[in-house]
Amino acid sequence: MHKIAMLGAGLIGRFYTMSLLNYRGKDEIKVICSIDPTEASKFAQEFNIPRWTTDMAEAIRDSEVDTVVIGLPNYLHKKAVLLAAEAGKAVLCTKPLAMNGPEALEMLEAVEKAGVFHGYLEDLVYTPKTLKALAAAQKGAFGKILWARSRETHGGPHSDWFWNKSLSGGGAIVDMGCHCIEIARNFIGKQNRPLEVTCWADTQVHPIDAEDHAVGLVRYDNGAIGQFEVSWTFRGGMDLRDEIAGTEGTVWLNHWLRTGFEMFTGVGQGGYVAEKAEGDTGWLFPVGDEIGSLGYVEMFMDMFNAMDAGRKPMEDFYDGYITNSIIDACYKAAKSKKWEPVEIASWRGGSASQAEVGLKDYDAAHYLIKEERMPNGNLKIILKHKATGEISQVIKE
Amino acid sequence: MHKIAMLGAGLIGRFYTMSLLNYRGKDEIKVICSIDPTEASKFAQEFNIPRWTTDMAEAIRDSEVDTVVIGLPNYLHKKAVLLAAEAGKAVLCTKPLAMNGPEALEMLEAVEKAGVFHGYLEDLVYTPKTLKALAAAQKGAFGKILWARSRETHGGPHSDWFWNKSLSGGGAIVDMGCHCIEIARNFIGKQNRPLEVTCWADTQVHPIDAEDHAVGLVRYDNGAIGQFEVSWTFRGGMDLRDEIAGTEGTVWLNHWLRTGFEMFTGVGQGGYVAEKAEGDTGWLFPVGDEIGSLGYVEMFMDMFNAMDAGRKPMEDFYDGYITNSIIDACYKAAKSKKWEPVEIASWRGGSASQAEVGLKDYDAAHYLIKEERMPNGNLKIILKHKATGEISQVIKE
Amino acid sequence: MHKIAMLGAGLIGRFYTMSLLNYRGKDEIKVICSIDPTEASKFAQEFNIPRWTTDMAEAIRDSEVDTVVIGLPNYLHKKAVLLAAEAGKAVLCTKPLAMNGPEALEMLEAVEKAGVFHGYLEDLVYTPKTLKALAAAQKGAFGKILWARSRETHGGPHSDWFWNKSLSGGGAIVDMGCHCIEIARNFIGKQNRPLEVTCWADTQVHPIDAEDHAVGLVRYDNGAIGQFEVSWTFRGGMDLRDEIAGTEGTVWLNHWLRTGFEMFTGVGQGGYVAEKAEGDTGWLFPVGDEIGSLGYVEMFMDMFNAMDAGRKPMEDFYDGYITNSIIDACYKAAKSKKWEPVEIASWRGGSASQAEVGLKDYDAAHYLIKEERMPNGNLKIILKHKATGEISQVIKE
Amino acid sequence: MHKIAMLGAGLIGRFYTMSLLNYRGKDEIKVICSIDPTEASKFAQEFNIPRWTTDMAEAIRDSEVDTVVIGLPNYLHKKAVLLAAEAGKAVLCTKPLAMNGPEALEMLEAVEKAGVFHGYLEDLVYTPKTLKALAAAQKGAFGKILWARSRETHGGPHSDWFWNKSLSGGGAIVDMGCHCIEIARNFIGKQNRPLEVTCWADTQVHPIDAEDHAVGLVRYDNGAIGQFEVSWTFRGGMDLRDEIAGTEGTVWLNHWLRTGFEMFTGVGQGGYVAEKAEGDTGWLFPVGDEIGSLGYVEMFMDMFNAMDAGRKPMEDFYDGYITNSIIDACYKAAKSKKWEPVEIASWRGGSASQAEVGLKDYDAAHYLIKEERMPNGNLKIILKHKATGEISQVIKE
Repeated sequence: MHKIAMLGAGLIGRFYTMSLLNYRGKDEIKVICSIDPTEASKFAQEFNIPRWTTDMAEAIRDSEVDTVVIGLPNYLHKKAVLLAAEAGKAVLCTKPLAMNGPEALEMLEAVEKAGVFHGYLEDLVYTPKTLKALAAAQKGAFGKILWARSRETHGGPHSDWFWNKSLSGGGAIVDMGCHCIEIARNFIGKQNRPLEVTCWADTQVHPIDAEDHAVGLVRYDNGAIGQFEVSWTFRGGMDLRDEIAGTEGTVWLNHWLRTGFEMFTGVGQGGYVAEKAEGDTGWLFPVGDEIGSLGYVEMFMDMFNAMDAGRKPMEDFYDGYITNSIIDACYKAAKSKKWEPVEIASWRGGSASQAEVGLKDYDAAHYLIKEERMPNGNLKIILKHKATGEISQVIKE
Repeated sequence: MHKIAMLGAGLIGRFYTMSLLNYRGKDEIKVICSIDPTEASKFAQEFNIPRWTTDMAEAIRDSEVDTVVIGLPNYLHKKAVLLAAEAGKAVLCTKPLAMNGPEALEMLEAVEKAGVFHGYLEDLVYTPKTLKALAAAQKGAFGKILWARSRETHGGPHSDWFWNKSLSGGGAIVDMGCHCIEIARNFIGKQNRPLEVTCWADTQVHPIDAEDHAVGLVRYDNGAIGQFEVSWTFRGGMDLRDEIAGTEGTVWLNHWLRTGFEMFTGVGQGGYVAEKAEGDTGWLFPVGDEIGSLGYVEMFMDMFNAMDAGRKPMEDFYDGYITNSIIDACYKAAKSKKWEPVEIASWRGGSASQAEVGLKDYDAAHYLIKEERMPNGNLKIILKHKATGEISQVIKE
Repeated sequence: MHKIAMLGAGLIGRFYTMSLLNYRGKDEIKVICSIDPTEASKFAQEFNIPRWTTDMAEAIRDSEVDTVVIGLPNYLHKKAVLLAAEAGKAVLCTKPLAMNGPEALEMLEAVEKAGVFHGYLEDLVYTPKTLKALAAAQKGAFGKILWARSRETHGGPHSDWFWNKSLSGGGAIVDMGCHCIEIARNFIGKQNRPLEVTCWADTQVHPIDAEDHAVGLVRYDNGAIGQFEVSWTFRGGMDLRDEIAGTEGTVWLNHWLRTGFEMFTGVGQGGYVAEKAEGDTGWLFPVGDEIGSLGYVEMFMDMFNAMDAGRKPMEDFYDGYITNSIIDACYKAAKSKKWEPVEIASWRGGSASQAEVGLKDYDAAHYLIKEERMPNGNLKIILKHKATGEISQVIKE
Repeated sequence: MHKIAMLGAGLIGRFYTMSLLNYRGKDEIKVICSIDPTEASKFAQEFNIPRWTTDMAEAIRDSEVDTVVIGLPNYLHKKAVLLAAEAGKAVLCTKPLAMNGPEALEMLEAVEKAGVFHGYLEDLVYTPKTLKALAAAQKGAFGKILWARSRETHGGPHSDWFWNKSLSGGGAIVDMGCHCIEIARNFIGKQNRPLEVTCWADTQVHPIDAEDHAVGLVRYDNGAIGQFEVSWTFRGGMDLRDEIAGTEGTVWLNHWLRTGFEMFTGVGQGGYVAEKAEGDTGWLFPVGDEIGSLGYVEMFMDMFNAMDAGRKPMEDFYDGYITNSIIDACYKAAKSKKWEPVEIASWRGGSASQAEVGLKDYDAAHYLIKEERMPNGNLKIILKHKATGEISQVIKE
């Protein structure tokens, strides 16, 4: 059982709190901290939290607290992490870890030096669907992963600070690309080093300085590609999907708009439908268990179980640092209009060389390229001659 | 915090235990009871349960235990419930409540006489999707519910006793119709009395005495229809869907085969894919969080929260009794080949008379029947003359 | 190449005409007949048809015409068919064939006596999806068909006469049940005799005499069940789906609301979206090729190719007669509240006795009931002892 | 009515012929040309074509023929087009138009100089779904198109020459990227000039010289992005999807694997399931009308109707030339690892400058950035101060 200081009383602090307290949980939040005293006291009352404060240091140093959960705007993460490290408390930080790679590295070094438990609250790799698909991938169901697309798009974030580059570190890439990049990285395998990126980013719709739409490709040392698509311009709700392609299989995960819950209402029901839903009449696609579907429940279970078991969680600050480093390269590439290398101060993964193309023998003289059943029922076989390289075909009726 | 005796170490006992212990829960299982000592001791070890026994009465009377959870074959429910009532313990019983209506009534009377908390573990009305859809229905999003189809079909149950009518009370109707009937009843509204049923039931595939496929219609006093479709002959996995139609809207819930998790594997991953899945290569449709998607998590949360709050849970033994009574009528109707009344000893709901058809005025002389936009862009309006009853149409270009 | 008289200038006449003239077709419409001269002349002009008339007999007897296509309200089918038979013209009649079984029989006898080609324009068995699924069924992909559900529901028909029982012969059952019944019959196999029906029908929403919602079960002599669901009360568009379950497989066809075309629009596009669509903003689900998806294109191709080849089309008046006879039994059952026999004057199919349940040997002493992979990876096998009938299970780790 | 020389008796020639002759069509194929005399004569016999030849020039110059349809490998397109132009015949050429941009330009100039009708057989912009979505886009349903993703992936082409770069001009980009690029271009609007591209291309799986997987981004002068994803490494069938996002809406088209036709078979049906399907048991996703769903029917209807009406078809050689030019830039970018300009010899579209971001007034002092309904029911409004640029939020309960 853990005793928690919750930093932040906004949407993310609320989701975290609901995840922690829900389901008759045994961990407890002892203090809530918000910059706004009204928000803080209301939050404490709503969730039956004994203490509230507007002073981050006070919450972190609360003598009963052993774990600090950071649900603050991006520009405050570093300060909170450094205080928690100093206080010797376990620290769980929301995504993205930092405003940029160098800041993330500083935070990583601080927690490692202090020897405190650190968890990176990258919830979307913890959705039950993602965990199950990752397990299948790790058991080889999809062969070698070749390409992983992760997409998060909606009409834009719900709080003002997200839209202000100096408080958030960027636009849609920092806000949601961090999810997509880390999801792809988990499927491709964390031992594989991200080498370089190409990226398009633009401000297409909103009167802001940061990008509101971006697409990027991250190339890994084993030849795999992570592709992210993020947008604050999307219409129709929140599009949250992953598509993974490997040599032996495919996975398609739809986390939000098409989850087997479809409803039409001519009259509406009043109020909230689902996060980022547009409209409340017509065909609507709510999500059954929003908090579970976003991964919060499994994420905190892993974090606290890891703490209790003295092991690392699935995602820690090193993962956050890698993600920030990839994002930095994306911003550089969007500007330079060329592929840019991902700069990583201390690479802790493997050093795979580019994987070889697999060769399948058809007969002594030929490699098999592919087979296909044709509409007339024939089987067509495409071959490559081992010696001459010539490509030919054989038809079997 | 509650201390539980778990009766039954089969699939259902396992799912219940995983739901209760998962997510860092605060309730505890103190004793597991199974008829098979090997199973009991293995189960105790696996889930870190301090005591095990093969004696149901011993488990129920365990002095530390305050709540009995029944995950036993149908023919043992009554015995366990009577023992728990006698011991003055709260009792949560799996579905169906009993082998038939009279048995259910006896159990209901026993717990009410003993004054113990009783919960009916009808998990499928507790899935997050179902709860959210029910909430929307209750807020009027679909108007008056006219028809509710609930379907559960797969290749047949996983334990021998299900297939033996004298141990289970019947076939697919008792096994899964209980879910479907209660789901429809929740959407239609529990205050509405189920009046009569028509039912087809047959043994189409398996060499057994009980039905392995059935369809039934339950007519309620407000004119609504609950439709159930159950089968142990279905191919392709487990088809678990609800479709609700109301005067103002529609809901389609897909709980299993199409939940936004689609994968293709040419090689498989070895072992279990999802409950009742067929095959482990090709296109597969796993479910992310099986236990959550089946409603177990929310169900136990409601049960224990209700106990703590001194209120009734969403589903109690009275609901189990109504369900058993409807099932009894279904078996009668399948045999008599006519609609049969649902016999309920003590109806506790409302006494709605058949709802009137709503009349919408078009103008002083006409009711509006409907409007439709035609392919050529015209609007066609169908009217009924208030005095003459004549039906006519108006076209607006 | 055929020369056609088109009877009826309403929605159905329009769809038929678009199907016949589209795609650079070689058949020609020579005369259009409508009761309303304005409609008739507009229609002739729009589709470049040389002649129009308000006189049905004149159109049928047009000397250039060899084929009469009937797209009229139900109460006029018989008159048109008898005139066409008399004139010795090929006749293609829209669905349902007649107001009831006896009328259908009279029409069948007339065309057979006259020796003219007769086609029953049951378009929904001709959709490309349905044809392909039927072909798979006939090749054994689904084993023996056990159950076939066909559903057509929307907000109600677009013309006044449909709502008037004396002009249409009934409500939603006559209007759409005819489709659903014949779709199920095709999957189950036309050689199997429909024996009896149970049916619920009610007027739930509209101020009319006919039923606006109904569900029925048709039992065939081989034990298979055809299930139809029809409604004029459905919200959200037109729900047009078939679900087929056999001993070896399953088919799910979605013809309208979920065909891989999904769009969200905040502003709409003005005008028509798709047949029976509700609303023109929010999430919409149009159909790409409406006419093709409803089966019109393939249907007329079969009809004219059959005529040219001197063979029967896939659907002729005998099929229409069977459908009407089943509908008659449904109306009787809805009233009598018991299963009613289907009365067929001259059964031309087979006389299958109730199919036996298949028995699969597990070993010398046991039949196999089923196998299932459990969550812990074990394989569970359910057996029946051949001699004692006892059911038992074996677990393989 | 047109008289056609069909060049090519492979899969594409077969699909074209089936499209042209199907549905009782009035156009006729008079001669089939294939390099293989056995194939040519078999094809002629199967489709009842009066003449066959192995001599391309003979077929083109056939005195009865007015229209040449080219269904040949890429390296033969130019030769066939030049012969047709010389013979003064209308010419319809399959995709891609040419091996590269300069070759395409030469072909365009030849047909324009000869004054013959030229159509570019880009079938995938002609699918009924695509045509309907394009119509909605043109009516403004999605506002300004911001991003268009088009994806075609499968296990690789069915004939040897595709895999040989010197015969095809490239790999997956030339083979399928041509479709995706032109689909995106149609949605974004052909008047908008494609400016530059970034592209990743790799040979991940097959022992060939060309790329078997690629992703590219095409930036247009109005700021819109066309994104293509092509692969010969995909597992699970043929993934053929488009996703379009605009300021006012969204479209998702699924052309192949999820079209509302889902079947499970434990035993299979023998033979062909659908183009590029993997396996023939388990869950399968056939397509109802393959030829129609791929756009062939509507494409030829447009081509011949355009010829008859003396107008341009929707896609002509100029479109093929633009597509080839974009592909050339993609190959350059994949190699140079930077964005490369699209070189177009004679741009015939508009000269839009980069579109401005739209500004919506909230009040006199503020622009509106966005609004969102929060889980607690509050409405949150994000604003930008017109003068200071400061971003703030307002909460309405």
